[in-house]
Amino acid sequence: MNFDFDRETEVVREDAGRFSVEVSDRWNIFTVPNGGYLISIALDAVGRMVPHPDPIAVSTHFMTRVEPGPAAIVVDVVRTGRAQTTATALFLQQGEPHFHTTATYGDLSVAGGPSRILGERPVIAGPDECVRGEGGMASEFLKHFDVRLTPESAAWATSRPTGTAMMEGWIRFVDGRPNDTRSLAVITDAFPPAVFNLMETGWVPTLELTSHVRARPVEGWLQCRFRTRFLMNRYLEEDGEVWDEAGSLVAQSRQLARVV
Amino acid sequence: MNFDFDRETEVVREDAGRFSVEVSDRWNIFTVPNGGYLISIALDAVGRMVPHPDPIAVSTHFMTRVEPGPAAIVVDVVRTGRAQTTATALFLQQGEPHFHTTATYGDLSVAGGPSRILGERPVIAGPDECVRGEGGMASEFLKHFDVRLTPESAAWATSRPTGTAMMEGWIRFVDGRPNDTRSLAVITDAFPPAVFNLMETGWVPTLELTSHVRARPVEGWLQCRFRTRFLMNRYLEEDGEVWDEAGSLVAQSRQLARVV
Repeated sequence: MNFDFDRETEVVREDAGRFSVEVSDRWNIFTVPNGGYLISIALDAVGRMVPHPDPIAVSTHFMTRVEPGPAAIVVDVVRTGRAQTTATALFLQQGEPHFHTTATYGDLSVAGGPSRILGERPVIAGPDECVRGEGGMASEFLKHFDVRLTPESAAWATSRPTGTAMMEGWIRFVDGRPNDTRSLAVITDAFPPAVFNLMETGWVPTLELTSHVRARPVEGWLQCRFRTRFLMNRYLEEDGEVWDEAGSLVAQSRQLARVV
Repeated sequence: MNFDFDRETEVVREDAGRFSVEVSDRWNIFTVPNGGYLISIALDAVGRMVPHPDPIAVSTHFMTRVEPGPAAIVVDVVRTGRAQTTATALFLQQGEPHFHTTATYGDLSVAGGPSRILGERPVIAGPDECVRGEGGMASEFLKHFDVRLTPESAAWATSRPTGTAMMEGWIRFVDGRPNDTRSLAVITDAFPPAVFNLMETGWVPTLELTSHVRARPVEGWLQCRFRTRFLMNRYLEEDGEVWDEAGSLVAQSRQLARVV
């Protein structure tokens, strides 16, 4: 394991379907482990149990905060078919459920059939024209990434919110780990909440996050856009799109979160 | 039970957490029960096990086709908190898993806090200027609904696909059943696939569907918009927005599906 991400999301098999892990405090945002980091741990466990290589649809419901420290993951392979396998992972600390992930795996290397691209990859400032995210108090998590926000998206941090709930920019691991279909789980939850460009708010905990992986990413930067359109009675959606340097959409995500 | 939807999604409790149901063939599209109808059955079971009234985030992974006839639903209440409860439902026929739903319930009647609406309800032709969907071969399912497609959205059926993968229009139950936060599960899967306006295709089975319920709908028509932007190697996303007559966004949905 040459890369932080792999080392710190690695689970240990205890017995059939049961895994243990030490949740690192090095992926914290403030004092809480990042949600995408936690999903990546769950997928490390699920990936060991299923015959297909790529998590193509991953839905996670977060119930209560995870703390750094020991945890267990219980994986149930619900059904294996020729093209897909669906499995669940329940993440426990001190015997109590903290989040639940359902993942459908397939093999994107053999995907074929009609393609019609109606959406466009946004044209944004290149990484060198963007603002590097340093993270400040949230820095433990961000130390693993080179995150560059467009000047507009960085407005919340450098001047004041733009009024448009959008975060756009670029991301890659600082230690050179190439992205794959599992690490996209942390990418879709790695940018500051888009709502930071709409209003001052504190914590924005995720209730539910689903990612669809559409292609295996090539090496290099990932271009991301996260947007919120409806903040209603404290609840908001955040929609994400992730593109690789080859110009392919590699993931779409949506989360339901709450400003507190 | 005065309404078809309630009567035909009603489960019977067998013992703690285990329910039975007779899947009707009256919600078929061609020969297969509609996915939103099936999720509604799962939610009838889950709703009996949880203390909160509204399914606010519902994620379903479909593994294999369900047939009309007897089925079992096994519900597991994963965690109950003050504000939310998360539960899973596994749907079985002849002992085999067919789909898996994870639902987080809350109480939208007590939701409060900041609201900022950045998206707009689309301005479309009213129900009387729209084209009523008759369903043709898919008619069993559509007999339960008054579905009106905008003339543009109906192009695939009446003339030829527009080239824009969008379906917009209106929907309500024909028997006058008012919508609630459970029935929105079927609404988000009730329109013809948006991809029908992009290309001729056959079946578009859903792999994963997540709905976020944002508000309780008032009585009357629901205005819907479903869109696909990325068809890649046979896989596509379909994003849905559902608005009520009071002008509120009541649900957002996204599914990952495959054209076959």
